[in-house]
Amino acid sequence: MVRYDDGMGGSRKGVRQRLQHAALELYAERGFERTTAADIAALAGVTERTYFRHFPDKREVLFDGEAALAASLADAVLTAPPGLPPLPTLLAAFLSAAAIFERDWALKERRYRIVAATPELHERELSKWAHLTEALASALEQRGVRPSVASLAAGCGTAVLSRARLEWLAGSQRGYPALLNDAFAELGLLIEANKDE
Amino acid sequence: MVRYDDGMGGSRKGVRQRLQHAALELYAERGFERTTAADIAALAGVTERTYFRHFPDKREVLFDGEAALAASLADAVLTAPPGLPPLPTLLAAFLSAAAIFERDWALKERRYRIVAATPELHERELSKWAHLTEALASALEQRGVRPSVASLAAGCGTAVLSRARLEWLAGSQRGYPALLNDAFAELGLLIEANKDE
Repeated sequence: MVRYDDGMGGSRKGVRQRLQHAALELYAERGFERTTAADIAALAGVTERTYFRHFPDKREVLFDGEAALAASLADAVLTAPPGLPPLPTLLAAFLSAAAIFERDWALKERRYRIVAATPELHERELSKWAHLTEALASALEQRGVRPSVASLAAGCGTAVLSRARLEWLAGSQRGYPALLNDAFAELGLLIEANKDE
Repeated sequence: MVRYDDGMGGSRKGVRQRLQHAALELYAERGFERTTAADIAALAGVTERTYFRHFPDKREVLFDGEAALAASLADAVLTAPPGLPPLPTLLAAFLSAAAIFERDWALKERRYRIVAATPELHERELSKWAHLTEALASALEQRGVRPSVASLAAGCGTAVLSRARLEWLAGSQRGYPALLNDAFAELGLLIEANKDE
């Protein structure tokens, strides 16, 4: 096992990334339960004290950037063209973040497997999606969408994003924009009779 | 504070209900953090040992019947008329459970406020909804719906149920069937507007 050096030296961003890589490596190798923040710090070549300056516990190291992503998607909802209906507004917001979603496939795929296999992390992940849903609903309301409609649209929009993400994580080569467009288009199938039946 | 006696004596169901009522009362009065399983048992008039025969910890006492509800909704999905599209199938399943949803308003409203105010319980509640979503998706797949469409439908269907529930908890006098029908109709409008783009 080698210590991480991403060439960014001791810069704040470099340290956070080294801690994230180290955490993923240790969680994959030993499991979440048998890894401590001190282990992660050691592998990343920093002190435990430095670890806790970046993350409050050994769970949050896998949930960095959550608030920033929700804020940037909410912002994209607010700046979408006026008059766009709720679901197309969410699609536009997701598409505007496609380049961010598509970064670091190998890292995100590894993270996904660890989260899915660890009940404590899985519960935290569900809460992350619920917070994103709330942020989107609230942004739609600020566009003048009625609260009851905004929460419905946000729930469906999150389902669409979650499905596109799973297909991307599973190795789809089609890219986020196509996956998002497909998923939004398929919403129409949900209320139409299955023509194959 | 009086000990609960629901006239059901020491029957298994009576004890569980007494424990649930006692937990709600103590959580509302002292907060979740400052209440122990022993406190709940004492108020319900049973031993701590009896408490732990019914619930593994002080959180689960507020999440009784979750698996049974998911199973009965999944069953209703499976027995819905063949050929019904995914969302109308979910609506039919939710409507078939309306009488169960409508039981015990005061109790559920109290539970809702406690869960919303307690981060640990709120996270558990999110995971309950996520499990329900998974159970619905899996039942739709058993009806022949493609997995990717089933997960979308289940996500949107859960958003509908969640919205109807919030309106009911907020004191709407319209009843679950009307609230569910309204939410589904509004979802239909969202999807139609999505298709027009």
